[in-house]
Amino acid sequence: MFQFSITARSNRARTGVFTTPHGELLTPVFAPVGTQATVKTLTPEHLKEIDATLVLSNTYHLYLRPGDELVRDLGGLHRFMQWPRPMLTDSGGFQVFSLAQTRKIDDDGVTFKSHIDGSTHRFTPEKSIAIQENLGADIIMAFDECSDPNDHAYTRIAMERTHRWAERSLQAKRRPDQALFGIVQGGVQPDLRAESAAFIASLDTPGIAIGGLSVGETKEEMHNMLDVVTPLLPEQRPRYLMGVGTPEDLINGVWRGIDIFDCVLPTRLARHHSAFAPEGRLNLMNATFARDERPIDASCDCYTCRTFTRAYIRHLIVAKELLAGTLISIHNLRALIRLMEEIRTSIADGSFEARVPALLAQWHGNAERKSTAEIQDTEM
Amino acid sequence: MFQFSITARSNRARTGVFTTPHGELLTPVFAPVGTQATVKTLTPEHLKEIDATLVLSNTYHLYLRPGDELVRDLGGLHRFMQWPRPMLTDSGGFQVFSLAQTRKIDDDGVTFKSHIDGSTHRFTPEKSIAIQENLGADIIMAFDECSDPNDHAYTRIAMERTHRWAERSLQAKRRPDQALFGIVQGGVQPDLRAESAAFIASLDTPGIAIGGLSVGETKEEMHNMLDVVTPLLPEQRPRYLMGVGTPEDLINGVWRGIDIFDCVLPTRLARHHSAFAPEGRLNLMNATFARDERPIDASCDCYTCRTFTRAYIRHLIVAKELLAGTLISIHNLRALIRLMEEIRTSIADGSFEARVPALLAQWHGNAERKSTAEIQDTEM
Repeated sequence: MFQFSITARSNRARTGVFTTPHGELLTPVFAPVGTQATVKTLTPEHLKEIDATLVLSNTYHLYLRPGDELVRDLGGLHRFMQWPRPMLTDSGGFQVFSLAQTRKIDDDGVTFKSHIDGSTHRFTPEKSIAIQENLGADIIMAFDECSDPNDHAYTRIAMERTHRWAERSLQAKRRPDQALFGIVQGGVQPDLRAESAAFIASLDTPGIAIGGLSVGETKEEMHNMLDVVTPLLPEQRPRYLMGVGTPEDLINGVWRGIDIFDCVLPTRLARHHSAFAPEGRLNLMNATFARDERPIDASCDCYTCRTFTRAYIRHLIVAKELLAGTLISIHNLRALIRLMEEIRTSIADGSFEARVPALLAQWHGNAERKSTAEIQDTEM
Repeated sequence: MFQFSITARSNRARTGVFTTPHGELLTPVFAPVGTQATVKTLTPEHLKEIDATLVLSNTYHLYLRPGDELVRDLGGLHRFMQWPRPMLTDSGGFQVFSLAQTRKIDDDGVTFKSHIDGSTHRFTPEKSIAIQENLGADIIMAFDECSDPNDHAYTRIAMERTHRWAERSLQAKRRPDQALFGIVQGGVQPDLRAESAAFIASLDTPGIAIGGLSVGETKEEMHNMLDVVTPLLPEQRPRYLMGVGTPEDLINGVWRGIDIFDCVLPTRLARHHSAFAPEGRLNLMNATFARDERPIDASCDCYTCRTFTRAYIRHLIVAKELLAGTLISIHNLRALIRLMEEIRTSIADGSFEARVPALLAQWHGNAERKSTAEIQDTEM
């Protein structure tokens, strides 16, 4: 279990097969996010139709609601949400720091108040692992602290704590059918990132995650950190870049040796009427589309593009019909999954390296990480 | 086109086949409501999977948004919303009287203000037919006035206006591929209902609608009106009971000779977490269901019941995930479509009459027409 076989390389990029209890993952792979045990507005059938393989769900959210013990008693996350393919849960660390109302960190763990009802809770590495064992995803994460990348002094403290928590997470882990990944932290400081990469790589884990990126730093800083980290990681373990990203980020990440990505962007954009398209990101609420008989993307093979016009989707948006979000989510997710398929094919046939500039140019109009509307949304 | 063949009878109930340009309708049939050219939260694929045949859409809403000329220019309602099976539009009359902000009725038509932006519009029989011809449904309705059933004096005025408007609607109609139904009105007054039934039946239309019921009168009054009206209608034309209703209403309606029904109830209930179930209507938000591993209805063949537990659906509701509405809508619609299938089978095999008491008892717990939550919702 959890074998990772590299099947092709192109400079630092690679394709691979990661074996999990719920099937093989072809990497590089993009994982849709199902925060609360559902990829918002989509059924599992929709996800199968777009060839999603890995789905991420959030430990913090599921611990609070409906509770990890309930999920365990109902047969685990796969059965609860009826997703038969591989799943990944995060450690809850990032959400405690970004969503919880108040938090108090000490070396042992974090005490925080729920964003839902203000009740007090405490996460430790041992608690995070226990929750993730109850949830039962194939890939689970060590508990980590994600610090403000601009607070350089504090970043070392958070990184060192993350290392100790990674060791404790590994020690707490009991289930043999889950792959625990350690998380590289270190903000935007090359020396800390290098130190963290070396430390996390020294732990006996079937894969390694890179956290604390795409949290407000510049694209250049993110690329620099990847340039520092990935060469220090063992070739034979998959690398997961947490919470990233835009189509451009995926291309840049694969080029720098990343194998696994997840991001709320495609579904969040969809709920704000924004669709990935060849001419750049489209805001389908725009009056321009009122009589546009074309699909979102004529080259796309998804249900939405095979079936509906931009005019119809715009009507749904203007009429405040929720189906709009469903249809755009299907397309946006399929667009990124197709991008990953295309990338895998081009790595396998040796053309990836040469195609990177064209891919980046093709996706440039879909590149922005945030819009005003997106910032207002919290994926809760 | 628009042939109606009666295939079996059981006292006043009958099964039939109504031929339309988009295929044959097996009657009695229940039509899901797609007010704004979408059955809320469902894709056309979901509707096909539950064997929906006829879908209703609302003329008033589509005229205001996105506009009937836009729908026409984009190929008509079937193509616009990608529903390949038969469709029905109402005349807009009921919505003008129930939704528009202000309205002024004269013998020629109705001037009203849009509930969306307060803009002023005017519907006449000719205008309603022109809009419905632009929309292009298979079955369309004569323009009618639906009056308060408790205002007996006014009911005659509204009924007589409805009759003149039915004649004008018939005269205005141009498209040969649409079946125009006249609408019987007359409130809850047996003499007016009888007069209206006779008049509407005298018009040369391929079917007849019964309006102005399920608008606040008692169940007994509705049954009495059906007992007056259906015996006066020609056998060889389908009868459509507009905006009805609960499972109990469907059983009672078929028993009294009704062939076509539509109602927002199943999808509206779904959005308020309420599901049809063997033990009566379930409010799935209830804590009772937190660990309930059963499907909504173990005897149901829908995707929701084949796939998900009550516990999972309850989690989605509590977590405010929109997928809950989708999953319950699939089930609630399938429940009524299955009920109609069961009724057709029992009419065909001669057991319907004997089974009515058992059917009514079986559905009794799902019978209430309105709940507080439902009253607050306006299907806009």
